[in-house]
Amino acid sequence: MTRLRFNISMSLDGFVAGPNQSEENPLGEGGMQLHEWVVELEAWRRPHGEEGGKVNASTEVVEESLENVGATVMGRNMFGGEGPWGDDPWGGWWGDEPPFHMPVFIVTHHAREPVTKEGGTTFTFVTDGIESALEQAREAAAGKDVALGGGANVAQQYLKAGLIDEMQLHVVPVLLGAGARLFNNLEGAEIALECTRVVAAPGVTHLKYRVGK
Amino acid sequence: MTRLRFNISMSLDGFVAGPNQSEENPLGEGGMQLHEWVVELEAWRRPHGEEGGKVNASTEVVEESLENVGATVMGRNMFGGEGPWGDDPWGGWWGDEPPFHMPVFIVTHHAREPVTKEGGTTFTFVTDGIESALEQAREAAAGKDVALGGGANVAQQYLKAGLIDEMQLHVVPVLLGAGARLFNNLEGAEIALECTRVVAAPGVTHLKYRVGK
Repeated sequence: MTRLRFNISMSLDGFVAGPNQSEENPLGEGGMQLHEWVVELEAWRRPHGEEGGKVNASTEVVEESLENVGATVMGRNMFGGEGPWGDDPWGGWWGDEPPFHMPVFIVTHHAREPVTKEGGTTFTFVTDGIESALEQAREAAAGKDVALGGGANVAQQYLKAGLIDEMQLHVVPVLLGAGARLFNNLEGAEIALECTRVVAAPGVTHLKYRVGK
Repeated sequence: MTRLRFNISMSLDGFVAGPNQSEENPLGEGGMQLHEWVVELEAWRRPHGEEGGKVNASTEVVEESLENVGATVMGRNMFGGEGPWGDDPWGGWWGDEPPFHMPVFIVTHHAREPVTKEGGTTFTFVTDGIESALEQAREAAAGKDVALGGGANVAQQYLKAGLIDEMQLHVVPVLLGAGARLFNNLEGAEIALECTRVVAAPGVTHLKYRVGK
């Protein structure tokens, strides 16, 4: 059974991006601190086409998170831009050769033709909701799992709908004080969590949960 | 040097008490879930005068948190009640023999004579701020450390002022969705954290941090 797996870096005070996100600063002010632990890893640099990098306790966590994933779903905010696409739509934050190398389904209110990028990444824009995006991603994944990319808003929707099977928080010891909170708008949601693994690593603690309704 | 140590149970979504706290339900709706891991422990039951209980990976964490503590500071909300005390002030949530067995200093806007309880607990009410309460607690601790009891509001004040030396979060895998957020009102605070220990235990994950300015 194809599972929906969610991996995300979060500050200790619960933010997954800093305040004042913009095209120039997509992670928001201070948000880059949430990703320092991963971008220096060999396990992250290799699939991004870069050489070198560290090997430490985070290595197997990152490798595992990339294994057996056949498609990705993400929110519009994580692709980039807002509102209607216009006649000459922006290509998003991911450049000409995005690091996904798989079909990516983007939950958005605004219809747009699919985009094919170099390296095997396709972006498909889904306007009829999170269930539809997940269904299309499951089909595209062809027996592999689906990764939920983020950001906070679409993650909350999938969490509240009980559609996430596994969630791993990469907790970074910083306090951003403001920004996009991962766990918000969840009042009244009935979500059962079981911690299945804890890994302490340099600059980050990995907390893995089985998620149920 | 006397250190200020802060231990607190927190839901995965960052709440240290549920919504709608009241005299009948001091932990708020669902808040008791944050403490289930500890109240079943022998290491917690013994100092509370109760027999039996479990021994597991949380045991040494709890025992350590109680060791070498000579005084406690806490907020008014954690003592109980709100507003002026009146002529016949309420004794608070802690009963005739509170589990502290040490001097406790309560940060409040409302003056009140000290109260002596059975078993060595004294409650002293401090109206001139968090620094004064900490100073008085340090003196009373006579060389031992001071424990910060909570709740969220006074913890935020101590954190923002850079007065906490060590913080340990007991992260419980539940989503309360609402209540008292521990990490709030911290925008602009410059707080350095270093994770010094991670302990995975039944029903809880203990994350310990060294806190600096």
